[in-house]
Amino acid sequence: MLFCDIGNTSYHFLKGKKEFKKAIDSFDPSTIKERIYYISVNRDVSQKLHLLENWIDLSSFIDWEKYYGTMGVDRIFAIEAVDHGIIVDAGSAITVDVVRNGVFEGGSIYLGLKAIECAYKNISPALETAINFELDMSCLPKNTKDAISYAYLKPLRDEVFSHNLPIVLTGGDANKLKKIFPEAKIETKLIFTSMKKMLNKERCD
Amino acid sequence: MLFCDIGNTSYHFLKGKKEFKKAIDSFDPSTIKERIYYISVNRDVSQKLHLLENWIDLSSFIDWEKYYGTMGVDRIFAIEAVDHGIIVDAGSAITVDVVRNGVFEGGSIYLGLKAIECAYKNISPALETAINFELDMSCLPKNTKDAISYAYLKPLRDEVFSHNLPIVLTGGDANKLKKIFPEAKIETKLIFTSMKKMLNKERCD
Repeated sequence: MLFCDIGNTSYHFLKGKKEFKKAIDSFDPSTIKERIYYISVNRDVSQKLHLLENWIDLSSFIDWEKYYGTMGVDRIFAIEAVDHGIIVDAGSAITVDVVRNGVFEGGSIYLGLKAIECAYKNISPALETAINFELDMSCLPKNTKDAISYAYLKPLRDEVFSHNLPIVLTGGDANKLKKIFPEAKIETKLIFTSMKKMLNKERCD
Repeated sequence: MLFCDIGNTSYHFLKGKKEFKKAIDSFDPSTIKERIYYISVNRDVSQKLHLLENWIDLSSFIDWEKYYGTMGVDRIFAIEAVDHGIIVDAGSAITVDVVRNGVFEGGSIYLGLKAIECAYKNISPALETAINFELDMSCLPKNTKDAISYAYLKPLRDEVFSHNLPIVLTGGDANKLKKIFPEAKIETKLIFTSMKKMLNKERCD
């Protein structure tokens, strides 16, 4: 069976146990002829896929009463896979969502790593830097790289720790964030797990 | 006497008590014929100004032993004006600097309001929003606008409050930030005050 999680920049496929990615700009979804279950946060791609009969949108199975209307479906699927924990999905944006005893309590949306580095560079070449994950966050920075890294990493770390829940990391930059959340569990296939769960539930209902 | 604080997007002038701004892209500094004292974080503009004899760069008066080499001169001048406090300079970037009993302890650099809104929009149209300064930060957000506003404002507020110092707000967006720092003192002319102080000191030494 084929699954696909469509983000802002890529199609992320799961075929059996094998994962692979295709760029949004260059991949033509009509080249896939078999049945494929997907979710998408990309409006342009979603419009195309609604015209293809073999692409089945799993977002129609969401119980929207538990969430809010404009919430990204990728966040919802990640949350559905976790019963008690804080989910940090590090993609082009980093979403931080709190689920306590099966109930979604809310969440926040940070800029992703690439977006943050790009945003500082766009302000001034003097602010062009890579985030320093080895930063000592216990003292105030005294250089530009660390002053930016501190403003980005400390809030994220403090927010996640403040909820005192098991931490689940997913998304393309999960491994990088593991450096500031050493106790976190990385689950790269979290959304696919949830898609399978949702599909099985619908079939049984 | 004429002073100018040059940022990434504009020339900010002070003539007597009157302030005015000119856009970096369209203003020609050689049209000013009188002596003018300036600081600049804009490398391109700095290169031009070094060729103009009447533009006097006050950054040459900085005691660099107190700061770090790549630190923005605007931050240094803001700090020089405050003996004991936390300075939040809300421009294209938002710098947060701690000065305790005359000693600079370090600081961090956040994205400015325009930069943050632009960066989310660039990730996805679904994340295009204006920051909500009326946000209740005591509970987790359940809509996209607040999820982004929470991720931006709460860290800034928590960081500033954590140092337990008088808060000084400056920069173009000082009035907007006043909403989350109601006890802060707004000082729009902080850098000019510091430029005058530096100039007088040099003349007396």
